[in-house]
Amino acid sequence: MEANMKPVGSSLESCLRFEVAGEQVGWISPKVASVLGRFPSVFRPYGSAVTFCSSLDSFENRSVAVDEVLQELREEGSFSCLIGWRDEQYAVMPRYCDPPLMFMERAATSLFGVKRYGVHVNGYTRDSGGNLNMWLARRSLTKQTYPGRLDNMAAGGLAAGCSVRHTMVKECEEEACIPPGLAEQALPVGTVSYTYEDDEGIFPECQFVFDLELPLNFQPHIGDGEVQAFYYYPIEKVKDLLVSEEFKPNCAMVVLDFLIRHAIIEPDSEPYYHEFVAGLHRSL
Amino acid sequence: MEANMKPVGSSLESCLRFEVAGEQVGWISPKVASVLGRFPSVFRPYGSAVTFCSSLDSFENRSVAVDEVLQELREEGSFSCLIGWRDEQYAVMPRYCDPPLMFMERAATSLFGVKRYGVHVNGYTRDSGGNLNMWLARRSLTKQTYPGRLDNMAAGGLAAGCSVRHTMVKECEEEACIPPGLAEQALPVGTVSYTYEDDEGIFPECQFVFDLELPLNFQPHIGDGEVQAFYYYPIEKVKDLLVSEEFKPNCAMVVLDFLIRHAIIEPDSEPYYHEFVAGLHRSL
Repeated sequence: MEANMKPVGSSLESCLRFEVAGEQVGWISPKVASVLGRFPSVFRPYGSAVTFCSSLDSFENRSVAVDEVLQELREEGSFSCLIGWRDEQYAVMPRYCDPPLMFMERAATSLFGVKRYGVHVNGYTRDSGGNLNMWLARRSLTKQTYPGRLDNMAAGGLAAGCSVRHTMVKECEEEACIPPGLAEQALPVGTVSYTYEDDEGIFPECQFVFDLELPLNFQPHIGDGEVQAFYYYPIEKVKDLLVSEEFKPNCAMVVLDFLIRHAIIEPDSEPYYHEFVAGLHRSL
Repeated sequence: MEANMKPVGSSLESCLRFEVAGEQVGWISPKVASVLGRFPSVFRPYGSAVTFCSSLDSFENRSVAVDEVLQELREEGSFSCLIGWRDEQYAVMPRYCDPPLMFMERAATSLFGVKRYGVHVNGYTRDSGGNLNMWLARRSLTKQTYPGRLDNMAAGGLAAGCSVRHTMVKECEEEACIPPGLAEQALPVGTVSYTYEDDEGIFPECQFVFDLELPLNFQPHIGDGEVQAFYYYPIEKVKDLLVSEEFKPNCAMVVLDFLIRHAIIEPDSEPYYHEFVAGLHRSL
């Protein structure tokens, strides 16, 4: 069994750290760094890092200066990710617990390899014999990313100012029609973190993971159209699906974490047990 | 709340990688590296790594050559860790899942920063209202390391050729007089990994973690004398103890992992939530 996630490869090793106020907040590819080099009044190289010019010393003026650069790049059409401009300000901080150092348009975060946070929910049941079944979602064919792939029962990104629990309850209701009173019973059980890259940039992500034990007679229903179907599988079938290419990769990681925490995978029969656990918790 | 673990600091950054057959298997401090430099027929520098001379190209001859060096250093009395020579061959491999590349006397592993593996068991109860209590051990005052500190209910190192589950059952019986039939019910729930340093060397460790739910009327008893007392505490009291200096640091990490997996610590009320999870899973 493999975690099925595009690993942090040599490409990231050639990237420059993106530092703000002396702290790393992301990764910048050589290609993006050379474009940012056209704006010497905003960015400057600093060893193996890109940082702000010293005049840009506050949350406000960093946010404004980056917005001006991004608007120009968006008009040029240099980067495909900027076509998806959302007018949504994303808070940039070194760690989740730190105060934000600047705002940045959400669609641009992959250019700067800024860490993004979200919530994933494992929906499962346990019968009187202790047997586990899990609810999985199949993503709509109209989704921009990973259409038609398997997903966790509910998931979504954290918006600035929203609590983790609030986001979890909202996504359960919107995506799977789970009543808030039931979703509130979900237990936070840790995080899964990783970095992947694609043509649109670098994506370091951290997902807050919840386990929601559902009544045996409960069924999730399609909500906002991000899901085309829900499946209800015995946990051994879910384990088999993990080694297929069916899953969206980060959702496979959330399921793998569930299988380990619930002792479905055991260290003596799975030689990569510790490698799996370590692989679920990569840092920036 | 802090993980209470001596962090990987600037000292490790100044260390050299210990590489065998092109793969990193440990860390060597500059002080140890300069001593190993006296044996140019065995070790050679290789960039920011120390590795074997190319003639030492097999499991056998690497193991023999290192043993000769270690016997000489032991007679000299250069390193305090070698006073504790155990005549126990430890298998050295890049990852737990890899075949061993050499044997090394166990007492010497901290000189080479070779990763060690063990088992820790959380003993707990859950009453009909869902309230958790946890069993903790206080280490004997005669223990060489961390005498008198709080520990998990049972724990111990993995010996070559022993399975993880076998080691868990053995330690439960020896340290806490838990009958094998009960210990067998423990569930493997992941790993906790970290690196610490002290005067005796560098200790990268990986602990396989088990949760053992005990009957409400069960009591562990002192077994082989490594424990002086067992305590039975409500989980909130255990949480409070974590921020004290009472715990052996790696045992505190195992408890922190338990508190996160059982939703005793929640992401919206603990700003360092993700930092805690990431900190429990450091790689070599």
